Order: sequence, then structure tokens, then C-alpha cells
Amino acid sequence: MNTTLLEKLNWRYATKVFDPSKKVSDADFEILLESLRLTPSSFGIQPWKFVVVKNLEIREQLVSHSWGQRQVADASHLIVLCRLNQMTEKTVDEYMEYTAETRGVDVSELKGFSDMLKGFVNKMDAEQLSQWMENQVYIALGNLMTSASVLDIDACPIEGFSSTEYDRVLGLEEFGLNSVVLCPVGYRGENDKYAENPKVRFLSEEVILEIS
Amino acid sequence: MNTTLLEKLNWRYATKVFDPSKKVSDADFEILLESLRLTPSSFGIQPWKFVVVKNLEIREQLVSHSWGQRQVADASHLIVLCRLNQMTEKTVDEYMEYTAETRGVDVSELKGFSDMLKGFVNKMDAEQLSQWMENQVYIALGNLMTSASVLDIDACPIEGFSSTEYDRVLGLEEFGLNSVVLCPVGYRGENDKYAENPKVRFLSEEVILEIS
Repeated sequence: MNTTLLEKLNWRYATKVFDPSKKVSDADFEILLESLRLTPSSFGIQPWKFVVVKNLEIREQLVSHSWGQRQVADASHLIVLCRLNQMTEKTVDEYMEYTAETRGVDVSELKGFSDMLKGFVNKMDAEQLSQWMENQVYIALGNLMTSASVLDIDACPIEGFSSTEYDRVLGLEEFGLNSVVLCPVGYRGENDKYAENPKVRFLSEEVILEIS
Repeated sequence: MNTTLLEKLNWRYATKVFDPSKKVSDADFEILLESLRLTPSSFGIQPWKFVVVKNLEIREQLVSHSWGQRQVADASHLIVLCRLNQMTEKTVDEYMEYTAETRGVDVSELKGFSDMLKGFVNKMDAEQLSQWMENQVYIALGNLMTSASVLDIDACPIEGFSSTEYDRVLGLEEFGLNSVVLCPVGYRGENDKYAENPKVRFLSEEVILEIS
């Protein structure tokens, strides 16, 4: 497993050309979604939703809001990772209710946790809250890309898109969401010359610092 | 592998109590560092360093700057995930030189990419640049946690610490770094009651949204 993990992390790359004819199986896609769902987050609050765009016409339309990147339309599946567009005491209350239910305790037993979390949320301004939620979404992205590579599925993280246009086209505001980052998944096309490019990563001695 | 991945993601949890006597082997720790090094980032720019704090006295001292969380001292290894404290055209130039070297091309061939990336960096203010770099560090965190779980290694992501104090104690400013998030890794203690808590994750129908 150990060598395998590194082999898979070395195998992955930001896929520029997907083979539109190759589809991720339902079983594998379910595993990807489940790995996303299991992503850890700060206080476990999961300030996100993962939007799977299945409509092909909409996906074509989204290409123009993604700097023309065809992966948005050509990959097997398009996942739009979103954060909540706001975080309030109500969000915390709902999370506490669900936690109490899951753990089989009365919600009153979580009062200390709830108060602490509300204090944490309340002391942040809107900008800080957005940043904090966005950070959590990036954990999900990291988890998704690693999980995909473990499953031999290609992926391409995309920050280069208009969040405003995605929110508009997909009606995300109505769901209380803002798009943060995209991750088309599928299988690389045979003609993707980027697949053979040597991976550019700084040497260990550059990025790992030991304090002894 | 498929079922295994989900089993491992279900097995993991934010470890509250590490067994200080159980150490991650050098071989496994090297794999974790290598998985961190291989983390994808925006434009591949890797605006990070990963600091491994080995000095036990310093780790004890850091507990008080981490809301008293003992994992910082008790886990087998403490990794502090850092971003660069600034991103300039020089950073881009160095990245381009390294890319040219890795790919065996002349750096002049990368001028288009370099100009585009500099334009991208220059249009952001300091706050936006920090946020962007921080986002990339969170990809590394997500990758690290998934990789650790695949290797049956426990981890505990920690945002609850004083970045200012960490930077000061570890002298990170001198390295041009700011601490972003912590991830102690090791093995759970037998007495960690959190290990048996049911994982609290919203149902699929809550967090997965399909647009058909």
C-alpha cells in the first residue's frame, strides 16, 4: 500500500484533456462522493456542499465561464465544491442538533461545545468567515484529489473560473451556496501531452524544514 | 482498494489522545513527507514549506500556544504547515527557473506562463495573496490526512493555535514563512474516548446536490 500510494500520487496530474467517451462508473463515483462527505473540517462543521453538474448543456455553457477550459464539459463528471454563503448561530444550532442525534445524546449536553463554536463564529467578520469556510472546502479538494488518484481516476482542480457566473448559472445562491473551486474527474485523453511532462516539485530539502 | 479507501476514511478521526510511546517509522514518515511534497497547487507554484518540529522541549512549549492541546507534544511527529509570507515576481521567477530545469527547456520558453502568473499575482492585494496561498496549504492538509489514513497513521488537524506565537517560537519569519495549520501524526492512545464516537457527517442528500 505504501509504495502504491506514492505511485498513485506521482501518477496523478492536473488533467488538461479528458477522454469524453470514458465514464467513471457509478460505483466509483459513489466512492468519490462518499470520500468528499467524510472530509474532516474545523469543529466538524462541514460548511459545504458538493454540486454535481449532470446537465450537459449547462456544462457546455460553463466552459465560457472557466477561461475556456474544456475539462468542465469533457470530463466524466463535474464537481463544483461550494461553501455556505453564510454561517450563523442557526447553522451551529442545526449542526448541534444533528450531532446530538448521531451520538444519541440530548442537545443540552453539547451546550459547552455549542457556545464555544458560536463564540468562535461571532468574533469573525464576514470576510474572515468566508476565508475560514473556504479553507475547509480546500481540505475537501485535497482529499478528493488524493482519493481519486488512489482509485486511478483523473482529476483537474480548477480555480480559473468565474465564481459569480457559476453561482448565477447554477442558481447556487438559492441553495445558500457560493462556488469555491472546481474538480472535473474522469479519464485522461490519449492526446494529453501534459500527462508525460515531468512533475515539477521542489526538492525535499527545499520544502521540508526540520527544527531539531 | 475501493472499499479499503472508505474503510480508512471512516477509521480516521481527529485524534485527541496520542500514545506518546508509539512512533511512526522513518519509512512511513518519509512517505507522508513525500505525499506532502507531491501535493497539487494552483499553477503548481507550491507556496509552502512543511516544518517538522523534532525538538521535544520546543514541542512542550508549543502546547501552551495551542489551547493546551497535548497532541502537539504527544504525537509521534508534529508537522506545521506553512505558507510563504510573501509572493513576489521573484518567487515566480525562481519557480520558472526550476520548472525549466525540471522539464529540460530554456526558461524563455516559459515566458507566456510566467507573464500570466505574474499578472495573476500582481492583481491581488496582500490579503488576497495570503488567502490564496493559505488555500493551497489546505490542499496539502487534505492530502496529508487522507494519505495518513491510507497508511493507518492517525492525525489531528489543528487550527486552534497562535500563529503569531508559533512563528516567533520557531523563527518562521526568518525562513520567510507563516504557520497556517498544524497536523500532529502518530498513533491513537488506547484511552482516547473520541475514537469510538460515531462520526458526525451530514447525510449525502444534505451535502451532495445534483443539477440535472
